[in-house]
Amino acid sequence: MSAVIDLTRDLIRRRSVTPDDAGCLPLIAARLERLGFHIEHLRFGDVDNLWATHGTEEPVLAFLGHTDVVPPGPEERWRFPPFEPTEHDGMLYGRGTADMKGSVAAMVVALERFVTAHPQHSGTVGLLLTSDEEGVALHGVREVVEHFARSGQRIDACVVGEPSAKETLGDLIRVGRRGSLSGTLTVKGVQGHVAYPDKALNPIHRFAPALAALVAERWDDGNADFPPTSFQVSNIHAGTGANNVIPGELVALINFRFSTASTADGLRERTEAILRAHDVAFDLDWHLSGHPFLAPPGGRLRRITAEVCRELCGIDPEESTGGGTSDGRFIAPMGAEVIELGPVNATIHKVDECVSLADLERLPDLYEAICDRMLRQ
Amino acid sequence: MSAVIDLTRDLIRRRSVTPDDAGCLPLIAARLERLGFHIEHLRFGDVDNLWATHGTEEPVLAFLGHTDVVPPGPEERWRFPPFEPTEHDGMLYGRGTADMKGSVAAMVVALERFVTAHPQHSGTVGLLLTSDEEGVALHGVREVVEHFARSGQRIDACVVGEPSAKETLGDLIRVGRRGSLSGTLTVKGVQGHVAYPDKALNPIHRFAPALAALVAERWDDGNADFPPTSFQVSNIHAGTGANNVIPGELVALINFRFSTASTADGLRERTEAILRAHDVAFDLDWHLSGHPFLAPPGGRLRRITAEVCRELCGIDPEESTGGGTSDGRFIAPMGAEVIELGPVNATIHKVDECVSLADLERLPDLYEAICDRMLRQ
Repeated sequence: MSAVIDLTRDLIRRRSVTPDDAGCLPLIAARLERLGFHIEHLRFGDVDNLWATHGTEEPVLAFLGHTDVVPPGPEERWRFPPFEPTEHDGMLYGRGTADMKGSVAAMVVALERFVTAHPQHSGTVGLLLTSDEEGVALHGVREVVEHFARSGQRIDACVVGEPSAKETLGDLIRVGRRGSLSGTLTVKGVQGHVAYPDKALNPIHRFAPALAALVAERWDDGNADFPPTSFQVSNIHAGTGANNVIPGELVALINFRFSTASTADGLRERTEAILRAHDVAFDLDWHLSGHPFLAPPGGRLRRITAEVCRELCGIDPEESTGGGTSDGRFIAPMGAEVIELGPVNATIHKVDECVSLADLERLPDLYEAICDRMLRQ
Repeated sequence: MSAVIDLTRDLIRRRSVTPDDAGCLPLIAARLERLGFHIEHLRFGDVDNLWATHGTEEPVLAFLGHTDVVPPGPEERWRFPPFEPTEHDGMLYGRGTADMKGSVAAMVVALERFVTAHPQHSGTVGLLLTSDEEGVALHGVREVVEHFARSGQRIDACVVGEPSAKETLGDLIRVGRRGSLSGTLTVKGVQGHVAYPDKALNPIHRFAPALAALVAERWDDGNADFPPTSFQVSNIHAGTGANNVIPGELVALINFRFSTASTADGLRERTEAILRAHDVAFDLDWHLSGHPFLAPPGGRLRRITAEVCRELCGIDPEESTGGGTSDGRFIAPMGAEVIELGPVNATIHKVDECVSLADLERLPDLYEAICDRMLRQ
């Protein structure tokens, strides 16, 4: 039997739909504690987080994962029950197999092997797990990092276990992520009757030229590591349904996914300038989900991770900053070099989520090799 | 006591919230029948309509009104109970006093006086009343006119009792109305995740330049009788609330209030051409509420109505085509010359709806004078 597959199966059986941990963290804490890890249970709000460390010196290499999963959706649409791990045709099926209980199990197994083989390793190796990554993510890594700021805990390098691979393990490592900046835009008008437009001020009409300008704007050209910043209006709403009433206001939700070629402040200022240039009366509430982050091209962790993929998987990995956000956005501002390496992400958040048994079997080797090259004396 | 005020009070007491007639029509039918009018009760769907005529020859001069009223809203906000007619400070208060039970009562009194004084008048004088003007207006004058087309009934001239005056009776007569053309526009996109805009097609973005062009378009310059055609987007909706999802479609309700300088077909074609020119994939369901209509400047009814206002009210009336739609839109396509003359409209559809007692007292004189000049031998 395989240690990583056994542990993955144990975790899948626990119905840890976000933010419920369903006992995953205590199981892992108990295993690592037996090997001499120092365990901190960090509970914020209704969310359990775990910080397990081995060693007390610098540098600190952290592995970051989450035990919560997205809801399974209609269980009858699954080929196999989502919380009963099932092996079929070289794959392990179940909610969380790829995102990311497989990675979490691989991290645990890798750390166990590494500290057993190198009890006197340099620096500190740590495992940070949350059960609030798939939900609102308020009481997870965000608060852990605030706690670290108060306690003086630093992290120098961080491997996130998010499923990064496209077709096979090691074909892509994520070396950064775009930032995400959202805004709730309220355009103000004056309500009235459609037959008397002179007595009203239609916010849809008032916004139209500004909207066209926002959509046409090229915010930046990206750079060597990032694609150009993208702007999307995800929601636009005005009017009560009556077709003889000019609405009094319009509300739009906007979102930037932005590269390191732009800043959140710069995007805010330019958006508001475009609205003002078109004489739009507006309120705009901004929410910054995360700044962009990047492991520098010459960074030690980035270099080692790519090396490990080449040597253990026989693939020269693509180094990408694509995709959505991850908890890496909270760790990077600590000054840490952050990379993401995990299994194929094709089935995540879908029915019949699954992971290749062969990839899962190899994943602890990759994580252990990273520990080894980062922290071996 | 005054015949017109007595009858208005009788009608106000009947809670005829659209489309309920609450006995108004039978009351009026009985009065006119006693004076030799031929009575037709026209019930379509759940709506009562009344067509009362005196004479059998041409030309046919019709008075057009409605006995239904809009709901009173919160009755405690009224100064006086909305269905208890109350005289105060020169005004008669109650739901429907101005829109348009006062006009209906004045028409009945005017017709009674006219046929009594001129039993052998030329042509035909008729009263057409519906109880479905304020609601969906499907089973009211729209269907009556279809019935007339089948029965061969013609109308040559029509006085609509809609409250037309601005400040005092006779200061404005409506000599036409703009047409109203609505459309439900569905812009098609491809749903996706905000982080992967290349895999989606945002219908808000796709529509933005076309929307700006539609809003900026000058559809026509109006003409001597009409202001320029106006275009309004009354509703725009896209997105489910989630700010990380690019929506799959956008729905907008649009409305033209159009002059005789444009045609419904022309506006439809130009709208669709602008959408196509901006490469928008769309469905567009059109609904024509009414073509524009106009009593020609040299028309007999228009000339006589203005004369009557000048002579009886001492005012040179403004001749306007402003405002929303009225049931005149159904009568005009019969080939009839349509004008609208009624009391001050400042309080219609509001709490504390009221009409000047002095204006109400004079209104039968105006309607009777129109009968007299149109139909006296």
